Amino acid sequence: MIAAAPSSTHLPIRLGMVGGGSGAFIGAVHRIAARLDDEFRLVAGALSSTPEKARASAEALGLARSYDDFAAMARGEARRKDGIEAVAIVTPNHMHAGPAIEFLKRGIHVICDKPLTATMAEAKKLAKAAEQSKALFILTHNYTGYPMVRQARAMVEAGELGRLRLVQVEYVQEWLTEAAERFGSKQAEWRTDPARSGAGGATGDIGTHAYNLACFVSGLTPEALAADLSSFVPGRALDDNAHVLLRFPAGARGMLWASQVAPGNENGLRLRIYGDKGGIEWAQEDPNRLWFTPFGEPKRLITRNGAGAGPEAARVSRIPPGHPEGYLEAFANIYAEAARAIRAHRSGEAPPAGTLYPTLADGLAGMRFVAACVQSSKRNAAWVAL
Amino acid sequence: MIAAAPSSTHLPIRLGMVGGGSGAFIGAVHRIAARLDDEFRLVAGALSSTPEKARASAEALGLARSYDDFAAMARGEARRKDGIEAVAIVTPNHMHAGPAIEFLKRGIHVICDKPLTATMAEAKKLAKAAEQSKALFILTHNYTGYPMVRQARAMVEAGELGRLRLVQVEYVQEWLTEAAERFGSKQAEWRTDPARSGAGGATGDIGTHAYNLACFVSGLTPEALAADLSSFVPGRALDDNAHVLLRFPAGARGMLWASQVAPGNENGLRLRIYGDKGGIEWAQEDPNRLWFTPFGEPKRLITRNGAGAGPEAARVSRIPPGHPEGYLEAFANIYAEAARAIRAHRSGEAPPAGTLYPTLADGLAGMRFVAACVQSSKRNAAWVAL
Amino acid sequence: MIAAAPSSTHLPIRLGMVGGGSGAFIGAVHRIAARLDDEFRLVAGALSSTPEKARASAEALGLARSYDDFAAMARGEARRKDGIEAVAIVTPNHMHAGPAIEFLKRGIHVICDKPLTATMAEAKKLAKAAEQSKALFILTHNYTGYPMVRQARAMVEAGELGRLRLVQVEYVQEWLTEAAERFGSKQAEWRTDPARSGAGGATGDIGTHAYNLACFVSGLTPEALAADLSSFVPGRALDDNAHVLLRFPAGARGMLWASQVAPGNENGLRLRIYGDKGGIEWAQEDPNRLWFTPFGEPKRLITRNGAGAGPEAARVSRIPPGHPEGYLEAFANIYAEAARAIRAHRSGEAPPAGTLYPTLADGLAGMRFVAACVQSSKRNAAWVAL
Amino acid sequence: MIAAAPSSTHLPIRLGMVGGGSGAFIGAVHRIAARLDDEFRLVAGALSSTPEKARASAEALGLARSYDDFAAMARGEARRKDGIEAVAIVTPNHMHAGPAIEFLKRGIHVICDKPLTATMAEAKKLAKAAEQSKALFILTHNYTGYPMVRQARAMVEAGELGRLRLVQVEYVQEWLTEAAERFGSKQAEWRTDPARSGAGGATGDIGTHAYNLACFVSGLTPEALAADLSSFVPGRALDDNAHVLLRFPAGARGMLWASQVAPGNENGLRLRIYGDKGGIEWAQEDPNRLWFTPFGEPKRLITRNGAGAGPEAARVSRIPPGHPEGYLEAFANIYAEAARAIRAHRSGEAPPAGTLYPTLADGLAGMRFVAACVQSSKRNAAWVAL
Repeated sequence: MIAAAPSSTHLPIRLGMVGGGSGAFIGAVHRIAARLDDEFRLVAGALSSTPEKARASAEALGLARSYDDFAAMARGEARRKDGIEAVAIVTPNHMHAGPAIEFLKRGIHVICDKPLTATMAEAKKLAKAAEQSKALFILTHNYTGYPMVRQARAMVEAGELGRLRLVQVEYVQEWLTEAAERFGSKQAEWRTDPARSGAGGATGDIGTHAYNLACFVSGLTPEALAADLSSFVPGRALDDNAHVLLRFPAGARGMLWASQVAPGNENGLRLRIYGDKGGIEWAQEDPNRLWFTPFGEPKRLITRNGAGAGPEAARVSRIPPGHPEGYLEAFANIYAEAARAIRAHRSGEAPPAGTLYPTLADGLAGMRFVAACVQSSKRNAAWVAL
Repeated sequence: MIAAAPSSTHLPIRLGMVGGGSGAFIGAVHRIAARLDDEFRLVAGALSSTPEKARASAEALGLARSYDDFAAMARGEARRKDGIEAVAIVTPNHMHAGPAIEFLKRGIHVICDKPLTATMAEAKKLAKAAEQSKALFILTHNYTGYPMVRQARAMVEAGELGRLRLVQVEYVQEWLTEAAERFGSKQAEWRTDPARSGAGGATGDIGTHAYNLACFVSGLTPEALAADLSSFVPGRALDDNAHVLLRFPAGARGMLWASQVAPGNENGLRLRIYGDKGGIEWAQEDPNRLWFTPFGEPKRLITRNGAGAGPEAARVSRIPPGHPEGYLEAFANIYAEAARAIRAHRSGEAPPAGTLYPTLADGLAGMRFVAACVQSSKRNAAWVAL
Repeated sequence: MIAAAPSSTHLPIRLGMVGGGSGAFIGAVHRIAARLDDEFRLVAGALSSTPEKARASAEALGLARSYDDFAAMARGEARRKDGIEAVAIVTPNHMHAGPAIEFLKRGIHVICDKPLTATMAEAKKLAKAAEQSKALFILTHNYTGYPMVRQARAMVEAGELGRLRLVQVEYVQEWLTEAAERFGSKQAEWRTDPARSGAGGATGDIGTHAYNLACFVSGLTPEALAADLSSFVPGRALDDNAHVLLRFPAGARGMLWASQVAPGNENGLRLRIYGDKGGIEWAQEDPNRLWFTPFGEPKRLITRNGAGAGPEAARVSRIPPGHPEGYLEAFANIYAEAARAIRAHRSGEAPPAGTLYPTLADGLAGMRFVAACVQSSKRNAAWVAL
Repeated sequence: MIAAAPSSTHLPIRLGMVGGGSGAFIGAVHRIAARLDDEFRLVAGALSSTPEKARASAEALGLARSYDDFAAMARGEARRKDGIEAVAIVTPNHMHAGPAIEFLKRGIHVICDKPLTATMAEAKKLAKAAEQSKALFILTHNYTGYPMVRQARAMVEAGELGRLRLVQVEYVQEWLTEAAERFGSKQAEWRTDPARSGAGGATGDIGTHAYNLACFVSGLTPEALAADLSSFVPGRALDDNAHVLLRFPAGARGMLWASQVAPGNENGLRLRIYGDKGGIEWAQEDPNRLWFTPFGEPKRLITRNGAGAGPEAARVSRIPPGHPEGYLEAFANIYAEAARAIRAHRSGEAPPAGTLYPTLADGLAGMRFVAACVQSSKRNAAWVAL
């Protein structure tokens, strides 16, 4: 036997987590994503606002260190030589800014769930903190991690669609068709609560994903939108359906539909983009396939790692074509990008070419999107600049 | 051998045609549709505005009588004992009202292509003529003839979706992605010409179909819309893309997208309707299948004449499940409905229960839709009442 | 008005029908197919073995002449100046040969339903009669009429798949999952009755279609097969499921599966062919689309009349891409081919290039297929030469 | 901060690996699968037959201990208090038996790639060793780990399909369409080499997966098969295509098709099972959806964790419906099952109810399948008992 001294470049990055105690959906997703490529090791956590629950969750997960709250964790970890290098923040929206600022202040990289914050005021504070920190801020708009989303973006960028005209995006769910928030669903409770979610319901929860995806792939940012928001379920304080018209620079136009009350739809995030030379179509529920439809030629189906797929997709893919990768792999790709950036940051370098993770700018854009939707809808779907 | 004296109930109805000379697409469709169920026999025509072409076309089709223009035909046929009982009008939009009024005046039933007319003024005149005539007026919004569209309508009506909340409809094409109207396409020429098409481009040509289908299946008529129309191809006088928000009575909302510049889409007419109990989804390019998604139950796929399909679909269907029926059969269903109504009309009866063909009211609604889209778009997508 | 003397080239061909009285499924299909392109006019019939039923059916259909039996009809029509030029035979299998021979003898073209006959002995007699007649014999293996089937055949022929290796074909139904023949289904009764159907059950009814399609598209005829037939429903005299291995010349191999006891399958006729350069895939329930998968390139979806579709498909297609054509149109294409051939025959010419209708040779091949399946299965799936 | 002493039940299991050095596909898959649920930690390896490569790979992966060969590793780890508890064997087929026996002998659990071995003789030796060992033997027939495969199995077991009649399974690939083994593909080299793969080519590599899946879901084991194997690529020593007929007890029948020369197919593993009450259909490339087609009712689509999916699927699933899980998650499910069994084994208990991982018996069944295919094919597709 020979000791295989692990090369320092492959030592997992020490990770902490705020939120994500037992029962939380997205915390578990972040942990799997962090672990999948062996780039992070979760060692510390403030997993719950209830200290006992935090401790029990930490023990169940085998964490080395558990804290009663994020502030204690930020202080404690910053002091240690083997303290965490990055922290994942997976709390409800209103609890993003506080911890994020605390860790950024101490130079600890932040990987934060979306949307950025619950309010624009918090978002601005967070932005300031991020600017003043040397640490990185990564927002988990995870759908941009899908290989065929990267492929689509690369194709648009390379001009294969020609000049863009249309961006049609939708994110459609069914889970809030009834008043789940009144029947004991914790997930539904905070997501329909303005105090915890912010001003946007479906808009904030999934509309921001759709918006981010559309911008990511098209390379365009809308100049203005007109939104018609609805709360179909009686007594619901936030929108559960959003109909949005989009206007992009140079005349491109789009539609965005976000709904949580469309029975039969699970996570129907779907993007279609058309230019004067061709179109693409991608759906999250069938993520390994991308339609490319050059005008006047047969439709082409490009599969992950299959013929026609380029290096941008291969870079964030692990297995051969025909073996489906899914949501967790795409989420892990954001973590892998974060790891690349963090490793580069250690040595004062820029992240390797092609590193694409959602940033604070994406988070702010999402906040502006939600605010504009709410404002437009209040003004009877008048146009609001972005 | 025994002469099989055809029972008078099954003597084909004598049909004339205005427009539809050689080379016209929709004329040939009407002829097949009229013939498919042996309910009509085409005997006379004014098939072209050019007399020689009219005559040559009539000869090629084996018509008994050819006329130089529709006025001569109306006069001539009205005079004959064996004159036509019905006429199909398949000219460009600006040539609908004239002939329609002429035949209605003489008590000859009119089967007219959509949209109703090119202008609202013509539409009103036509409406008046129809009111004053005893003859029937049938508008070929052919997509309502698909069996699974009938099935969907019946399910909505029966309350299987609960109270409706969302109506999402789109009709997406690619054929005007480039300036086909400048490269010799007759179809593209008149459809992009305001003098012949009217105020709506994509709006009139396919938007009216989408609008009609949404109303037909949902049983709802929007109260207001907000539209953002575009003409993406330089120099094009009419819209080639329409983004429309819809508001229905009782709080239901919707989106309508009509486009002729989306590469990869051939005739992507797709309807999705959601209520508080379930949803349906149907697509014209896969017309024999209907998704029904009751909330909280497995998704169900209902096939034409398959398990779960009801009498409303069976009534307009000819062959067993798994043997696809298509566009021509759906079109023929409108003709078959027309035939039922005409036969009933002969004996002074109401059409049999379940007869559903698009009427003048549908045509007027379509005209209002186009006008409202144009008006709203000029006012920067402000809401316009319908 | 000017009389439009129909050019003789477009006078519909006078057609008679044997079988197809009221209630029969396939008779109605043949009538629509004959009528769809206005190439035939049905004028005479011996529509049922019961004279009253025959007469009533003829009257309901508006036929000029009704006969009590096919022999009387053959004699009677042959004598008339305006007698039928062609006859459609749409009886159960055991009633194909008799009428076919009778009409062929008198120089009347025969359009006959498949399979050719119920027994090989009949098939041989019919073959002899056909040889001795100047009249044409057309077998309605209707699936070869689909435009994308023509497209597939043309691509194979042009070498786009390279040298063929694999031919996988299946025709899967569900309708005989239970003993429908004992519960009043006329269709099920004769199709499961050896006296009327012949030696093959699923094999004859749908296996012959699958076999014919595979041969038509691949251009190959198997040298040998090994078949394992089953009758899953207790008491059923004929096979309701067939598992068949195929060996083609030059080393290509295949599998054929025909089943009528597979719940969830309506008319699942599906063909996949692979060569050393690429593959194709087509399914009857989605007939307007053809997959073409050149090795090492993105998969391509070719649509009827869309980009990439060639003249062989366009020739048998009526409407633009995205407007689905279906089963009846494909069936009508066989009739249209028959009409072309009959018109050419009139003037002593060969049918126009590209005319492809199934012939007596196809019928005999189907009979050999059924016989070989039955023989192989009795010998425990031993190889039987074809 | 409070130390969160990890509960012993959640300490990851110490894992070693034989094979899987840099560049190997399946080794990386096993590592991700082992890591995904945090149930295993890879600490030792004999990752390559070349010591330097082994060391470099171990270092790159951050392994604590690297060995030059599996024998040294077995001895070394058995001696340590903190030695590995389980080993993953991810070498080519001919290198399964040797290491497996070595570790089993020392009471170390074995997680072994499929097929079991290269030869039946080795398989028998391995079986003996497994019988004599207290350690567990887990075979990674990973496709049985998909949630909807579990769902399908549960539905069959619950009788929802009635009495089974038909089992149709196929695993179709394209990657060996050309002679990849002569153009530098390591994967292709050993998989087409009898010395390393054994007697089966496509049969062993993917046919065993298809066979295992069919048996797993149907609960049936064939009594006999008839196989027609081909080597389409000139010079290839092993089969690259297998056509197989299956006979199950009590009269059920099936077909199995395994191919590596079908362009357009990536990993087309597809299973269809039909009984006298209904059918199911599942495809690996779209793994989160399962069709259930009860005879006489609308087709139902059951989604992972969606309505209609039961506890057997939920048990091996991590995220909500509509967020696709894929190949790695299914593979990880086999590891998670292994972990459950290993933890239970520690305390002398049986694995928790519902634990389903492929065992030695599955491996032996796979070996018999390959042997029977080869034997049958040599005898011209004669039936061979299993």
